[in-house]
Amino acid sequence: MRTTDKVNKILSCFEADNAGTRGNLARILMEGHLGGTGKLIILPVDQGFEHGPARSFAPNPEGYDPHYHFRLAIDAGLSAFAAPLGLLEAGATTFAGQIPTILKMNSANSLSRQKEGADQAVTASVDDALRLGCSAVGFTIYPGSDAQYDQMEEIRELSAEAKSVGLAVVVWSYPRGGSVTKAGELAVDVIAYAAHMAALIGAHIIKVKLPSADLEVAESKKVYLEKRIEIVTQAERVRHVVQASFAGRRIVVFSGGAAKGEESVYDDARAILEGGGNGSIIGRNSFQRSYDDARKMLEKLIRIYKREEA
Amino acid sequence: MRTTDKVNKILSCFEADNAGTRGNLARILMEGHLGGTGKLIILPVDQGFEHGPARSFAPNPEGYDPHYHFRLAIDAGLSAFAAPLGLLEAGATTFAGQIPTILKMNSANSLSRQKEGADQAVTASVDDALRLGCSAVGFTIYPGSDAQYDQMEEIRELSAEAKSVGLAVVVWSYPRGGSVTKAGELAVDVIAYAAHMAALIGAHIIKVKLPSADLEVAESKKVYLEKRIEIVTQAERVRHVVQASFAGRRIVVFSGGAAKGEESVYDDARAILEGGGNGSIIGRNSFQRSYDDARKMLEKLIRIYKREEA
Amino acid sequence: MRTTDKVNKILSCFEADNAGTRGNLARILMEGHLGGTGKLIILPVDQGFEHGPARSFAPNPEGYDPHYHFRLAIDAGLSAFAAPLGLLEAGATTFAGQIPTILKMNSANSLSRQKEGADQAVTASVDDALRLGCSAVGFTIYPGSDAQYDQMEEIRELSAEAKSVGLAVVVWSYPRGGSVTKAGELAVDVIAYAAHMAALIGAHIIKVKLPSADLEVAESKKVYLEKRIEIVTQAERVRHVVQASFAGRRIVVFSGGAAKGEESVYDDARAILEGGGNGSIIGRNSFQRSYDDARKMLEKLIRIYKREEA
Amino acid sequence: MRTTDKVNKILSCFEADNAGTRGNLARILMEGHLGGTGKLIILPVDQGFEHGPARSFAPNPEGYDPHYHFRLAIDAGLSAFAAPLGLLEAGATTFAGQIPTILKMNSANSLSRQKEGADQAVTASVDDALRLGCSAVGFTIYPGSDAQYDQMEEIRELSAEAKSVGLAVVVWSYPRGGSVTKAGELAVDVIAYAAHMAALIGAHIIKVKLPSADLEVAESKKVYLEKRIEIVTQAERVRHVVQASFAGRRIVVFSGGAAKGEESVYDDARAILEGGGNGSIIGRNSFQRSYDDARKMLEKLIRIYKREEA
Amino acid sequence: MRTTDKVNKILSCFEADNAGTRGNLARILMEGHLGGTGKLIILPVDQGFEHGPARSFAPNPEGYDPHYHFRLAIDAGLSAFAAPLGLLEAGATTFAGQIPTILKMNSANSLSRQKEGADQAVTASVDDALRLGCSAVGFTIYPGSDAQYDQMEEIRELSAEAKSVGLAVVVWSYPRGGSVTKAGELAVDVIAYAAHMAALIGAHIIKVKLPSADLEVAESKKVYLEKRIEIVTQAERVRHVVQASFAGRRIVVFSGGAAKGEESVYDDARAILEGGGNGSIIGRNSFQRSYDDARKMLEKLIRIYKREEA
Repeated sequence: MRTTDKVNKILSCFEADNAGTRGNLARILMEGHLGGTGKLIILPVDQGFEHGPARSFAPNPEGYDPHYHFRLAIDAGLSAFAAPLGLLEAGATTFAGQIPTILKMNSANSLSRQKEGADQAVTASVDDALRLGCSAVGFTIYPGSDAQYDQMEEIRELSAEAKSVGLAVVVWSYPRGGSVTKAGELAVDVIAYAAHMAALIGAHIIKVKLPSADLEVAESKKVYLEKRIEIVTQAERVRHVVQASFAGRRIVVFSGGAAKGEESVYDDARAILEGGGNGSIIGRNSFQRSYDDARKMLEKLIRIYKREEA
Repeated sequence: MRTTDKVNKILSCFEADNAGTRGNLARILMEGHLGGTGKLIILPVDQGFEHGPARSFAPNPEGYDPHYHFRLAIDAGLSAFAAPLGLLEAGATTFAGQIPTILKMNSANSLSRQKEGADQAVTASVDDALRLGCSAVGFTIYPGSDAQYDQMEEIRELSAEAKSVGLAVVVWSYPRGGSVTKAGELAVDVIAYAAHMAALIGAHIIKVKLPSADLEVAESKKVYLEKRIEIVTQAERVRHVVQASFAGRRIVVFSGGAAKGEESVYDDARAILEGGGNGSIIGRNSFQRSYDDARKMLEKLIRIYKREEA
Repeated sequence: MRTTDKVNKILSCFEADNAGTRGNLARILMEGHLGGTGKLIILPVDQGFEHGPARSFAPNPEGYDPHYHFRLAIDAGLSAFAAPLGLLEAGATTFAGQIPTILKMNSANSLSRQKEGADQAVTASVDDALRLGCSAVGFTIYPGSDAQYDQMEEIRELSAEAKSVGLAVVVWSYPRGGSVTKAGELAVDVIAYAAHMAALIGAHIIKVKLPSADLEVAESKKVYLEKRIEIVTQAERVRHVVQASFAGRRIVVFSGGAAKGEESVYDDARAILEGGGNGSIIGRNSFQRSYDDARKMLEKLIRIYKREEA
Repeated sequence: MRTTDKVNKILSCFEADNAGTRGNLARILMEGHLGGTGKLIILPVDQGFEHGPARSFAPNPEGYDPHYHFRLAIDAGLSAFAAPLGLLEAGATTFAGQIPTILKMNSANSLSRQKEGADQAVTASVDDALRLGCSAVGFTIYPGSDAQYDQMEEIRELSAEAKSVGLAVVVWSYPRGGSVTKAGELAVDVIAYAAHMAALIGAHIIKVKLPSADLEVAESKKVYLEKRIEIVTQAERVRHVVQASFAGRRIVVFSGGAAKGEESVYDDARAILEGGGNGSIIGRNSFQRSYDDARKMLEKLIRIYKREEA
Repeated sequence: MRTTDKVNKILSCFEADNAGTRGNLARILMEGHLGGTGKLIILPVDQGFEHGPARSFAPNPEGYDPHYHFRLAIDAGLSAFAAPLGLLEAGATTFAGQIPTILKMNSANSLSRQKEGADQAVTASVDDALRLGCSAVGFTIYPGSDAQYDQMEEIRELSAEAKSVGLAVVVWSYPRGGSVTKAGELAVDVIAYAAHMAALIGAHIIKVKLPSADLEVAESKKVYLEKRIEIVTQAERVRHVVQASFAGRRIVVFSGGAAKGEESVYDDARAILEGGGNGSIIGRNSFQRSYDDARKMLEKLIRIYKREEA
C-alpha cells in the first residue's frame, strides 16, 4: 500500500528510527478512514484500570466486553486501539491484523491513596507487545509528580527496547502531583512543557490534554506575556503545543477528558485541526455512548478531520 | 477425554493463550464431579501461612497433615487444590496426576506488623510449578494497598513466564490497605474493580470475595445509583462482578471467607450459580469441618452447582 | 481422578522423577479406555516425515489432515498421540486437554541417502513441548549406527531439560546401521539390548519393534543358548525384552511395523499382553485403515488388553 | 481493516500461533490487489545471491537497484517482497509500511564448489527482521541433501524465535543433492514430500516448485500407481501438493523457475488456482522483464487469480 | 563419624581439592566393612551398556533389576556402587544415603562397529550426579585410541565441573585402539602409563586392569630392562602402577576382567594388597554369581583386605 506524501513527510521526521518503527507508524497513519491524511483518531480503553469498571462501562454496558472496543475501533475506521495487557489478550487473536494496537504498559488506579501523580504499575512488557502483534507501546508519565523521574527512567528502558524491535512509542504526558495545582494540570504552559518533555524522552506520538488558557508557572507566565505567545483560542494553544513538540516533528494527539456533549467534541477536533495537531484520542466520549451514537460521532469527527465538513 | 461444549466455550475466550495453558485450564474444568459443567470448586490451603497453624487446623487437627488436604480434594471430586510451595512438596509426588494443583506463589503472614495490604513474600517460582506438575500458579494482589503496584509488577514477570510454559494464572484479588476501609474491602464497587484489574493484568481465573451491597468510592457510588446497577441481591452482585471480568470472558470464583454455617455456604453457591459465577474457592469452610462433614457439605455444593438440587 | 493401584505401582518405579514427570506419566496411563489398567496404546504419526505423505496417507486420504489423527486418537480412547512439531501445532489448540501428546523431537527422512541409521534432524525443543501442552517428548536412537553416540548425547541434553520441567521421555530405540544386519534389526538379542540401552540413558517409556527369534551377535548367541533364555514364542521374547528394561521397571511398548492383516495385529497384542509388555504403538496399522475399520480394530485391541476378549 | 472470511478461514488454521504471527500473515493476505482473496503473489529477489548479479539483473539492468524491486512490488500491488539482508536494508526505510517484507535468512551461491544441496550461509537474524519491520522470515532447506538435517536444525532455532516475536515463517523447500536426481528435484512425489516436511517443521507459508508428473522414489511410485493418485495435469499435481501440506491447512505458493514465456506463466497460475494452491512466487519472470512488461504480466496474473479472466 | 588416620593420610594427598570433594572421598573410604582401612571395593554395573543385558545378567537373572545391585553392594558392605544414569535413577531414591554412588558418565556399546577404543557417548551430566546424590562421577578414557584426545577434553570439562561442586572423579583408564596390540592392552608399561595419564588429567580414583608382565612399547622396554624395574610378580606390577600414580598420592583400584574362578579373584586381591593398591572394582565377578556366592566371595575379599585372613 503506497503511503501518501503527507504520511511520508511525517515519517521522514523520525530519522533516527529503524524501518520497523517507521513501518508501524505508517501502519497507524495509513489505517482507517483517516489513512493517509496525516490525521489520526485513537480509541484508548484503559479507564477501567484508572476509574474502575462501573464508572467506565455502566453508561454503555456493552463496553464490559473487550471485543466491543475492538469492533468499535475497526467498524468506525479509526487509526489505532490502545489498551492494557489483559484487554488486548482478550481480543488480539480474533482481530489480528484488523487494526493497529497500542499496548498500554503502565496504569494507576483510583483505589490507591497515592492519588495525584504517584507511581503506576508497569503491567506488561515489550515481549508482550510483540506476541500480541502491537504496533506501539504506550506509557504514562506524570510531569511534576514526585514519581516523574522514576517514570522517565522506566520509559527509557522500555522505549529503548521497543524501538530496537521496531515498535513505536506513545507517551501519555499528564502533568500532576508535586506542586502542580489542579488548574495547572491543564495550563497551557504546563501542557506545552509536558509535551516537550515527552518529545525529549523520545516519544513518537505524544498524547496530552487540550490545554486551557491558564498559565501556571510564574517564570513562564512572564515569558508568555512578554513574548505575546498566542494562547487565546484553543487552536492557538494547540499550535503552541505542537510547536513545543519539536515544531511539529512529533505526532501530537489530544484527549478531551471526561464524557461531554457532542458539539464540544467536534469543537475540540476543529481546534486541533486548525492548530495543526495530528488528531484525537477519544476514550470515554466514544465508548460511553451507545454504539450507534459513537459511530455517528466518530464519522462526523472523521469528516471534520478530512475537511469534508466544518 | 473429550471436552464438553461448555468447557470449549470457556476455553475459546482465552484466545491469546497457547495450547499448554488452555490444556491446563481444560484439566481443571474437566476434573472431578463438576468436570465439564463449566463450574468449579477449588480447595485452597494457605491459611496456615496467613493466620498460623493453630488458627487454621486446630478445629480439625487432621489438617495439620498436608496429605489430608490432597485426599480431601481428590475424594470429594473437587476441581483443583491450591497451596504454597512446601505444602505441595509434601504431597505432590504421592498424589501425582490425581488432581490439578495451583502453586500459590506469594503469601503474607499475620506476624508481620505491616498488617493491612502490605507486601507479601514471593515464596516459589514457575520452575517449582513445573517440577511439581502444577496446572497453574496463584498470586495475591491487594488493590488499594501501598504495595499494589509492586505486586502488579511482580505478577507481570511471573505471569509472563508461567504463560510461556503453558501454565494458567490465578489471581487472588483482595482489596485492602491504603484508603480502603474495612467495610470497603467487601463493597461491591471495590470488589468489581478488583476483579476488573485482575482481568486487565492477565489473569485466567479471578478469585474475589463475595461482595456486600456497600458502595465505597464516592465517585462510583454516584454511577451505581444513576445507572441503576442492580446490586441488591447477592446473585445480582455476582453478576456485576462477572460482567466486570470482561463480560464473562474470564473465570471468576468466589470465596466465602471465615468458617460459617452450612446453610450460609449453600446460599453463597446458589447466588454464585444464579449470578453466573464459575464457582467457589472454599478453604476454612471445608478443612475446618471434620472429614465427613466436609465431604457431605461439598457433595451438596456439587449438587447445587449441577442444578441437581436447589 | 484417583490413580489405580496398577498405575501407582508403575509410577513408583520412576523414583528419581519429580512430581511433574510422574503426573504426566499418570496422565497417559489414566487416559482413554485403557486408563488405569497399566496398559496403553499410543498413536504415532511421524511416518509422513520418514516415508513421505503419499506412502503414509494415500491409503486413507483423510490422514493428510492433522485433525484427523487427533480425532481418531481421542474418539478411539487411546492413551496418547505422538507427532512432530508442525503436526502438533496444527491441532494442539483445538484439542487442548483432550489427549496427552508426545512431541516427536527428531526425524529422519527417506530422501536422505544416509539411509540406514544415519543422523536425524532435531526439529523441536522442550520449550515447544511446554507451549503445546505436551506430556512427553519423544526421541529416536539408532543403536549400532555410526550416529548412535551423537544421538545419545543429544537425548542426554533434551531428556535432562524435559525431566527438569516435568515432562516424560519416550525413546524409540531402533537398532540399525553400522554392522547390524537387516535381520539383526529385529533379532531378539539386539532388540533386548536396544531396550536396555534406552533404559540406561533414562527413558521412561521405551518403544521397540516386536523381536524375531533370530540372534545376531555371536557372543550373545552363545549366552542365549547356554543360559537357555526362552525366546521361542513372541510372548517369551516380549518377556525377555521387558526383563532387559530393568526387570519391568520401565514402560515398554511395541510397534508392529508396516500395515498388515488385522489378525496379525491382534496376535501381536496377545503376545505383548502375555509377555508382560505395556502395550502397543500403532501408526500405519491404524491410520492407513478407514476411520471405521481403525475404530473397530482399536476397540478389539482395547478389549484384548483389558482381557475382555482373548 | 476488516479481514475477509476467506482470510479468516486461513488464519484460523494457524491455531498454535500468537496474535502477532497471525497479524503478520493477515497483513500479507490483505495486501495489494489480491488482498482478501486468500491468494497471493510474492516477489522474491535472492537470485543475485544464488546466481550472481549479471545473470540476475543484466536482462533488465534497473534490477541492479534494490529500490526498483520495492517499487515494482508496491506498484504492481503484490502481497509481499522477499530478499536477503543487505537488499532489504537498502530500501526498508524508504518503503516502510508500503509492503510486507520477508527477510530471506539463508543463501547459497554458485561460486561454491559444494553445488547441489550443500549447506548455505545464514546471513541474517530475527532481530534484523524486527528492526527492518519485516512480516516474516524465509529459510531454504534442501530435502535429500547431506546438509538437510543441519538446515532443519537451524530453522528450528530461527523459527522458534521468529514465532515467539510474532513473525511468520516461510520455508523454501527445494529437494536436491544426495541421491535426488536432477529430474527428481521436480518429481511430484518428491515435491509433495518436500512440502510435507516444510509443514512438519512448522512453516506457515511453504514455497515449492511446480512439480512434474515424474515419480522419483521407487517405493512411492508403487503407491501413486496403486492408489491412483491423480497427477496427470498440473492442477492435479498442485492439488496433491496442497493435500500434502496438511490438507490445505498451510499456505502453499509455487515458483515457476527460470524466466520463460508469458503464456507459460499464466498457465502456471491457472493450474495453481484450479488445484487450490495459494499463489505464485515470481522472481526472474517478473524482474527480468522490463518494468512495463512485468507490470502488464502481473496485472494479468492478478486478474487470473481473482477469476476476472481465465 | 571420625575419619581414621589412614583415611586422613589419603585425603591429605588431595590438597588442591575443596572440602566437598574431600568429604565425598572420605564418604567412600569410611563406608562399609573396609571403612577406615584405606582399602575399598567398588561394585560397577555398566556391563549391560557395554555387552548387552543377556551377556551381563543371564548368568544371574536377578541382575536385570537395578535394585538387586544396590542391595548387593549395601548388604555386602562395599565402599561404593557405580552405574550409568538410568540404572542409578531406578534406585537412587529408594537407597538414598545407603551407599556412595558413582555416576558413570560415558559408555560404549558392542553394537557399534567402531569397536576398539572409538568414542563413547556421554550419557549423563554433573547436574544428574548432584540430583541423584552421587559422591563421584566416573569416566572412561581409551589411551592410545584415536579418540583419546577428545575423551581427555571431555573429561577436562566434566571433571572441572564435578570438582567445583564437591564431587570426586573416577577415571577408568583402558588402553586400546590405535597401535596398541591386544596383548599390549594389559602390558605393564602401558597400564602404568595409562594410570599416570589418569593422574595427570586430575583423577582422584584411578581404575586400571591388573597388568601382565608384558612390555609393549620398544622404547620403554629398554628402560624397564636397563633400570631393572621389578615386574615379575603381580604384586610388583601393582606396586609399579601405584608408583606411576603419583607415588601413591592417588587412589588406585584394579579390575579383574571377565568372570573367573574364586581363587583367582582372591589371588588378585592378595597381590593388590601386597603391592600397595587401594582395592578392587569387581563387576561381573560379583553380580554374575548367585547372591549367596557373591556375598561369600565378597566377605572373603574383605577379610583379605583387612588382613584377617591370607
